[in-house]
Amino acid sequence: MIIVLKPHPTPELIGHVIERIEALGFTPHLSQGVARTIIGVIGDEDKLQVEPLQAIPGVEQVVPILKPFKLASREFHADDSVFEVKGVKVGGGHLMMIAGPCAVEGEAILMEIAAKVRDAGANVLRGGAFKPRTSPYSFQGLGEEGLKLLRAAGERFGMPIVTEVMDPRQVELVGRYADIFQVGARNMQNFDLLKEVGKTGTPVLLKRGMSATVKELLMSAEYVLAQGNRRVILCERGIRTFEDATRNTLDLSIVPNAKGQSHLPIIVDPSHATGRPDLIPAMARAAVAAGADGVHVEVHSCPEKALSDGPQALLPHQYANLMDELRQLAEVLGKMIDASEGVTVRC
Amino acid sequence: MIIVLKPHPTPELIGHVIERIEALGFTPHLSQGVARTIIGVIGDEDKLQVEPLQAIPGVEQVVPILKPFKLASREFHADDSVFEVKGVKVGGGHLMMIAGPCAVEGEAILMEIAAKVRDAGANVLRGGAFKPRTSPYSFQGLGEEGLKLLRAAGERFGMPIVTEVMDPRQVELVGRYADIFQVGARNMQNFDLLKEVGKTGTPVLLKRGMSATVKELLMSAEYVLAQGNRRVILCERGIRTFEDATRNTLDLSIVPNAKGQSHLPIIVDPSHATGRPDLIPAMARAAVAAGADGVHVEVHSCPEKALSDGPQALLPHQYANLMDELRQLAEVLGKMIDASEGVTVRC
Amino acid sequence: MIIVLKPHPTPELIGHVIERIEALGFTPHLSQGVARTIIGVIGDEDKLQVEPLQAIPGVEQVVPILKPFKLASREFHADDSVFEVKGVKVGGGHLMMIAGPCAVEGEAILMEIAAKVRDAGANVLRGGAFKPRTSPYSFQGLGEEGLKLLRAAGERFGMPIVTEVMDPRQVELVGRYADIFQVGARNMQNFDLLKEVGKTGTPVLLKRGMSATVKELLMSAEYVLAQGNRRVILCERGIRTFEDATRNTLDLSIVPNAKGQSHLPIIVDPSHATGRPDLIPAMARAAVAAGADGVHVEVHSCPEKALSDGPQALLPHQYANLMDELRQLAEVLGKMIDASEGVTVRC
Amino acid sequence: MIIVLKPHPTPELIGHVIERIEALGFTPHLSQGVARTIIGVIGDEDKLQVEPLQAIPGVEQVVPILKPFKLASREFHADDSVFEVKGVKVGGGHLMMIAGPCAVEGEAILMEIAAKVRDAGANVLRGGAFKPRTSPYSFQGLGEEGLKLLRAAGERFGMPIVTEVMDPRQVELVGRYADIFQVGARNMQNFDLLKEVGKTGTPVLLKRGMSATVKELLMSAEYVLAQGNRRVILCERGIRTFEDATRNTLDLSIVPNAKGQSHLPIIVDPSHATGRPDLIPAMARAAVAAGADGVHVEVHSCPEKALSDGPQALLPHQYANLMDELRQLAEVLGKMIDASEGVTVRC
Repeated sequence: MIIVLKPHPTPELIGHVIERIEALGFTPHLSQGVARTIIGVIGDEDKLQVEPLQAIPGVEQVVPILKPFKLASREFHADDSVFEVKGVKVGGGHLMMIAGPCAVEGEAILMEIAAKVRDAGANVLRGGAFKPRTSPYSFQGLGEEGLKLLRAAGERFGMPIVTEVMDPRQVELVGRYADIFQVGARNMQNFDLLKEVGKTGTPVLLKRGMSATVKELLMSAEYVLAQGNRRVILCERGIRTFEDATRNTLDLSIVPNAKGQSHLPIIVDPSHATGRPDLIPAMARAAVAAGADGVHVEVHSCPEKALSDGPQALLPHQYANLMDELRQLAEVLGKMIDASEGVTVRC
Repeated sequence: MIIVLKPHPTPELIGHVIERIEALGFTPHLSQGVARTIIGVIGDEDKLQVEPLQAIPGVEQVVPILKPFKLASREFHADDSVFEVKGVKVGGGHLMMIAGPCAVEGEAILMEIAAKVRDAGANVLRGGAFKPRTSPYSFQGLGEEGLKLLRAAGERFGMPIVTEVMDPRQVELVGRYADIFQVGARNMQNFDLLKEVGKTGTPVLLKRGMSATVKELLMSAEYVLAQGNRRVILCERGIRTFEDATRNTLDLSIVPNAKGQSHLPIIVDPSHATGRPDLIPAMARAAVAAGADGVHVEVHSCPEKALSDGPQALLPHQYANLMDELRQLAEVLGKMIDASEGVTVRC
Repeated sequence: MIIVLKPHPTPELIGHVIERIEALGFTPHLSQGVARTIIGVIGDEDKLQVEPLQAIPGVEQVVPILKPFKLASREFHADDSVFEVKGVKVGGGHLMMIAGPCAVEGEAILMEIAAKVRDAGANVLRGGAFKPRTSPYSFQGLGEEGLKLLRAAGERFGMPIVTEVMDPRQVELVGRYADIFQVGARNMQNFDLLKEVGKTGTPVLLKRGMSATVKELLMSAEYVLAQGNRRVILCERGIRTFEDATRNTLDLSIVPNAKGQSHLPIIVDPSHATGRPDLIPAMARAAVAAGADGVHVEVHSCPEKALSDGPQALLPHQYANLMDELRQLAEVLGKMIDASEGVTVRC
Repeated sequence: MIIVLKPHPTPELIGHVIERIEALGFTPHLSQGVARTIIGVIGDEDKLQVEPLQAIPGVEQVVPILKPFKLASREFHADDSVFEVKGVKVGGGHLMMIAGPCAVEGEAILMEIAAKVRDAGANVLRGGAFKPRTSPYSFQGLGEEGLKLLRAAGERFGMPIVTEVMDPRQVELVGRYADIFQVGARNMQNFDLLKEVGKTGTPVLLKRGMSATVKELLMSAEYVLAQGNRRVILCERGIRTFEDATRNTLDLSIVPNAKGQSHLPIIVDPSHATGRPDLIPAMARAAVAAGADGVHVEVHSCPEKALSDGPQALLPHQYANLMDELRQLAEVLGKMIDASEGVTVRC
């Protein structure tokens, strides 16, 4: 931590700051220059409580030096974390290919979509039973009935399932069905929910908030890790910018950026990021080329009748074509796509 | 709702869209031009389920015409809503002046700050007992102990109290102490929490999410209103932009903008928006001049030792000076600042 | 400047950095801690060429300490700069009230608008002769003919005039007519244009770019000041954010923020910032309450026939009402609005 | 164009709008519903001058239907435009690989870098002679001397050269040396400059402004095209967002998005977008996978001594490794990288 004082500091101010630092058990390093005086303190920044020192009148700036996350960091765990969910690995060169409808709407349509994405090579099935909708008047999901249908589809087609949990009170219920919890973008900083899923042994797919920085995403992962659950998969799904041609702006630089700082796997969701089926395949290819550990795509066999987010879904044959392209890219880049138990081999 | 078709639509496509609209019980209006064909449908847009029609291949754009919120709208309630909390009104020309420390830290410091903000003319006392912190290692609040202290301070100084609730499971507990629930920016789209506070009779101070549009803020208010709780106070606290000289960018245009569309009162929090005490007074004045129904300011008597957000707190005497300025402005603008029971008259 | 090294630096790296600093004529201060090593250098940062040191492998971060602008800073000129243009002052408590049509469209309509804004109390007349339009097919302005009309209106109604200059080749021509040059948001970093207007003696109204930080705005002002022209008026006109309910997001915090760092006057343009006449009056009041040195408003007597930006113009009687409100606020805040020579006294 | 009226429009208002539309030579289509009345007009929107109608009191919204650009659109030119510059093609499956130093600094270093990027497979050489710098005190480029050096390097190594032009007055001079003009992000809406380069026969590399939408980038291209110069290459180089871990946020979705609407080639600059050498290779791969027509990378053999943007430059051997990866990706994706005359074949 470096403390920069305003021009012409009084000896009293310098003494006061030094005293506060020493009271916290650290050794200050004073450097006095012509234009500015700075005081360096190197140590455990948590204990230094960065902010209050900034509140001292006469302090211009406090510059933190260390990263605020620990368990999520490469310093803590140098190698890529690799998780396995029912035989499907993610991280360390293994790509998790998640596909399925936005919401679970009914048995027949879910089974149809599940069969098709499995045949296309998806290795995890997704579907929402509890839906976070902007409007209280929109379809809110089938609840437990939806969880049962998704579980049945996962078992029938031999695929692990991922579904969203929105409320700490639902964690136990959703946990009875899900192989992976999804924490959605709107809940990335729902800290009580993070703590609750952190207490379980179920992997967590943690989506980046629409205006969250890389650092904040990693801090939210830290909440889960700190409770003992070490299986967090990060997910980029677009951030809010001024560009209105797409639903959000997909920020692929987070892939190498997060990987540089953290051992956690990171996948990309081009469906929510763009909201446009005409852009999803290109963004999915770009995600894999950028080094993502997987791709999350919404697929629906009749988008115009979907109860949620229909216009952004790929049709099953579009998804199959995309998976063909991604397999080629994966091969060139030395990545693997594990087959789920139920995956039909394509030739 | 207006449906714009891509250039050169086939008669089959036009027929398909018209059929879908009629099946939903509406009358389509077809307009065929040289460059584009459009189909107008005017009616209850909720039933039209805007999005799925956009998923029909050949549809270029679906343009919604009606606003998606109802109970929050001026059409539903033409006059300004005015609420009263223990004798303190907000809305319709009455300004709610909320002040207090970021977090409840202990009895002595809380009582000292409460006495000073009451003397300065604040009419609601704030303080956090459950704190949403970016880091799991930061101070997370005193919990119920904090609620008790805040309640005691409110009673001693005759002020209603507002405090944050973060988890649907805490609503009952916090509701036993709070006069006003605060739903923080990070929870603006925590829909289960919104529903839960919507089931109570306690007013809700709903803060705008860091990347929420005006429309989304009003949709979140709609979640609370739809459960039967009609006392929602909106709060602007800054949005995320590229400008890094301030913590967030205070968007004051939301004040006249929300008021044009909605009857709900809206107050402004310049403390979180700027994160800088040197900018707070100017932004508080601007808020009142823009027509805000109140101002929310963090005050601490020893910012450099605060356990949370110290560097953005005003000192008590700075807050007293600011309140003097705001009273002058309020008078010129024809606004009132109700005294809380405990307010000492200043001359 | 502080140089933070990556963990576990080699003695060679430390030696190399120290050598580079000494070669530049400065004295490095080394602080070695458990987690990080930092090297402080305090001196003339321009000469240190911040960036290249960041390129040394092993350097994690270079933190600049000093501000990059000089002539624009409070350190260089402690008091507010006050300029006078034909008897109208701006800065130091004097508000410059600029009004007029977006574009000069013709003699009759310009004279009509000029008469009305003068009567309402505006003290500077605006109007565009060269228009920066997003589309090459939109009306591009009347050119020199427009300058002549604006000049004539200014003389007839006794008001100084401000008009935009877009091209370094136009500076001489526009300078023959204008009392104040406007450099528009799109040209805030058109450095050759800034240098050219910097060589003249005509004051410059410098609008903030749509995605410029406060620091960048002041750096652009520095370009003008460095050429010898010390009369720069900053202008906030909204920045780009995700909020789509307004054309841009007015960032009023720049007013106290710029004033804290710089002696230059700063005015606010709520017309371009919001693009909505229903929001302009509230934002103009907020601007004055925030401490702005003036307000820039577009006024048109028949917005639906305006050749440019009609929908955001106030009608003359709306502007007159607004000026009444602003005069009241100005009085309470201890500000003055100078009459231009031609201003009719209103009672 | 669709005109939406406010609730409960008077017959006079409807009549007035219809009259205005008919006066412009169009046929209005009236649809009256329970909640809203809309008036559709389909025709040449330029002539309709969208904005003024929005200024009619009683009009709630004017929704444009047609795109505002023509010559840049796919409707105008259905196939991908393919340009050739000294034997190097861009567009239609041909990738333009631009590399070189940020600024031309001197003969020896330029020749060294040029030799290395040519050997690595770059087919266009870049280098700035006129530099747009945020600070007036930073190195501003060598001017004509720099152009001469760059020309000499291009000839010696058989590569076409691209260099920035910032001022309409420089177009003639720069045009004598450059094979491709670069118009930088800060000048994307410098309309006089766009017109000036549009009058030449030299291809233009047009960089997206830091806060420009896709639509605005295409409108700026339209300015060049409308002057007769049909060889415009679009370039994505990152936009401004709240994320501060990277210099800007690379928006790769613009690649398929622009290609869907426009026939112009689009390349990607990950150097300026990220500002971080550790992220550039991943983003360059992602760009090619997203369908970009080329990649623009800054390379310097001694970044720590570069006069401009050193910290974001790749070292020559890093660039060579990246080109190896990009060639593999290009092959899988069916793209070609033309050799410039001087390219040494690598095995």
